[in-house]
Amino acid sequence: MAGLKAKSEMYGERALIAALRRQVKARGVRGAGEVRLGIGDDCAIVRPRAGEEIVVTTDFSLEGVHFRRDWHAPEAVGHRCLARGLSDLAAMGARPVAAFLSMAVPRELTVARRGQSWVGRFFDGMLALAEQYGCVLAGGDTAEARGGACFDIVVLGAVRRGRALLRSGAKAGDSIYVTGALGGAAAELLAVERCPRKFVRVTKAEAGHPHLFPEPRVKVGQRLAAMWGVRAAIDVSDGLSTDLTHICEESGVAAELDAEAIPVHALAMEAERKGWAASAMELALHGGEDYELLFTAGPEARVPRSVAGVPVHRIGRIVRRMARRPQVMLRDADGSVRALEARGWEHFRSS
Amino acid sequence: MAGLKAKSEMYGERALIAALRRQVKARGVRGAGEVRLGIGDDCAIVRPRAGEEIVVTTDFSLEGVHFRRDWHAPEAVGHRCLARGLSDLAAMGARPVAAFLSMAVPRELTVARRGQSWVGRFFDGMLALAEQYGCVLAGGDTAEARGGACFDIVVLGAVRRGRALLRSGAKAGDSIYVTGALGGAAAELLAVERCPRKFVRVTKAEAGHPHLFPEPRVKVGQRLAAMWGVRAAIDVSDGLSTDLTHICEESGVAAELDAEAIPVHALAMEAERKGWAASAMELALHGGEDYELLFTAGPEARVPRSVAGVPVHRIGRIVRRMARRPQVMLRDADGSVRALEARGWEHFRSS
Repeated sequence: MAGLKAKSEMYGERALIAALRRQVKARGVRGAGEVRLGIGDDCAIVRPRAGEEIVVTTDFSLEGVHFRRDWHAPEAVGHRCLARGLSDLAAMGARPVAAFLSMAVPRELTVARRGQSWVGRFFDGMLALAEQYGCVLAGGDTAEARGGACFDIVVLGAVRRGRALLRSGAKAGDSIYVTGALGGAAAELLAVERCPRKFVRVTKAEAGHPHLFPEPRVKVGQRLAAMWGVRAAIDVSDGLSTDLTHICEESGVAAELDAEAIPVHALAMEAERKGWAASAMELALHGGEDYELLFTAGPEARVPRSVAGVPVHRIGRIVRRMARRPQVMLRDADGSVRALEARGWEHFRSS
Repeated sequence: MAGLKAKSEMYGERALIAALRRQVKARGVRGAGEVRLGIGDDCAIVRPRAGEEIVVTTDFSLEGVHFRRDWHAPEAVGHRCLARGLSDLAAMGARPVAAFLSMAVPRELTVARRGQSWVGRFFDGMLALAEQYGCVLAGGDTAEARGGACFDIVVLGAVRRGRALLRSGAKAGDSIYVTGALGGAAAELLAVERCPRKFVRVTKAEAGHPHLFPEPRVKVGQRLAAMWGVRAAIDVSDGLSTDLTHICEESGVAAELDAEAIPVHALAMEAERKGWAASAMELALHGGEDYELLFTAGPEARVPRSVAGVPVHRIGRIVRRMARRPQVMLRDADGSVRALEARGWEHFRSS
C-alpha cells in the first residue's frame, strides 16, 4: 500500500454499484412509496407518513463471526443479513420501509463465476427477503476488504407514534410469551458444522432451516403492537436467557420461566437424540438466533394461541425485582426454582 | 473457532455498551428532540417534524483502507468517521439528527491504557464533532473483529420536503461553484505518510488539518438548500474530477472547469514546493476527501462570495452533453481545453 488512496482509471466500484442498481430495479421492490430517492445520491430520502415515527436498527454480518463461506451459501448470508434487521423491526412492532447495505468484500467475491458473482448471489438472497416484506434497498456503501467480508445492514421501519414495543415496558404481573419454537437455529448450526458441504448447497428460503433461512416475525410484531395489553418485546437473537435478561434490566423487573412450557424446536430434540448437544433445553434457553419474538402482556390482554399464523406460548411471568433473588429464574417440572444465567451470545466475552 | 457462536458468562459487550452509554450521556448531546429512544433497545426511534423528510447515508471507515492506527490518532479516526456522514448530509442541505455506529474492533482496542481505551478515545473524537452539530448518537452494533477494525456510520438528517439538493438537478447554463479550497486533505496525507509519528499525536480538531480533522460543511449546505437557484450539490469526497462526473452523469449534462479559478489549498502548494507531489493542481483535481461542497446554480441565483463564513468560488459551467465531447473538460489559462478524467478514489479499481 503506497498510501491510503491508490488511484486508478478503472471503475470497479461504479460498475459494481451500477450492476446492483440494475439488480434492485429488476426485482422491482417498490415499497409503500416512502422512499423518495434511492441508490445514487449522497443520501437516500425517506418521507414518513403523517402520524408515524421512524425506527432504525443496524446489524453487522462478519465473515468468520456470523457466517463462513464454506458453510453458508451466499443466498443464505444475504437472507440472514437482512433477516437480523427485519427481526429488530418486528420486535418494535414496526413496518419495514427501507434497507441500506454497507459491504466491504474481498475483490474475488465481485467476479462472476458461471454467470454470477458471490456478491450477486448474496443480493439475490437479500432481495428475495426484502421483496417479501416490501422493504426497498435504498442505498449503502461499498469498499474493498483486505480481510474477510463485512456487511452492515441498516433497516428503517415505520410505526404509529408512541406505539412501538419497547424492552422497557414490562411490569410485575405480566405474562411472558414466545412465538414459534426455540433452539432450532442452534441445532441446525450444529448440523452445518458436522456436514458443511451439504448445507452450503441450500440456496432457497425454504421452511425447516431456522439457522440458514430464519423467518423474521414481522407480521406478528405489527399485530402485537396493535394488541391491547402487550407491554414489552424483544427478538430472540442472543438466546432466551440473555434476551429475557435485557427485558428485565431495561424494565427494572425480574422473571420466572416454566421449563415445561418452553417450546423446544424439533431440530433441537433431534440434536439431543444424536448426541450433538447435551440437552435440547440448553439449546432452547441459550441457543440464540431463533429470531422469534419474546414479549410480555398484562392480565388485561387476550393473547391468542397463534398470531399471524405463528403459534404463541405462555412461558412464564414477570415478578418484582428483589435484592437477593436472581433476575431470571427457571422453574422445573418438580417445582424447584433455580437461577437462569444469561449465557447467550456476546462479543468480547473472555472465553 | 469451535463453532460460529462460542459462549461465555463474561459480559464484555454489555460492559462496552454500558460504558459507551455513559460516555454519550456525559457528553450530553441532546439534539432537537427528534430522537425519542436511543441506545439500548432493538431499534432507536426518530420522530420527524411535520413538513420534513428524512435523509439517510452510510459510510465505512476501514482500517488499512481509510485509516491506519500508526498514522491516525483514535480521536482523528472517530472524527473522520462521522465527518464523512455529516458531509453527505451537508451535500443534501440537511440538518443532522442522529447517528448510528456499527463497530467491529479487535479486542485489544477495548482495553484501557493510561485510563482510556483506543475505542474510548475514538468516541471522544466522534462525540466532540457530534456535539458541534447537535447530532445524537442513537445506536449501533458491536462485534469483535478477527482482522482490522471496521466502522460503519449511519447518519440521519432532516430536510424540508422536496428541498433536498440532489446530484441530478444540474442544467446546462448553470455555474459550478466549490466551497473552501481543494487538495489540502491529499497534501496533508502525503505529509502524514512521511512522518506518521508526528501526526499520530494530533488529537484535537484544530484548523489546518484537512485530512486528520476535516470540517463538514453542514451549515453551508443548509443555506444553499434554502437559496434561490441552487440546483445540484455533492460533497468532494472522491475528488473534484470524480464528483463532478457524478453530477454530470446523474443530471445528463457535461461540465467545463476553468483551471485558473480552482481554489488550491495552501498545503497542496507546499506539497508541490517540497516535491511531495508533481503538481498542486493534480491534488486539487483528484485528491479527494476535502469534504468541500461542489454545487451548481442557475443564472437567476445570487451566490455570495462566502456562505456561513466559508469562501465560495465559481470554477466553471454546466454545458449540454454532446456525443463526441468529453463529459468533464478543463480549460487552461491559455484557453486550451482538454478532457478531465475522473481519477479520484474508487474501490475495486484494477491498479
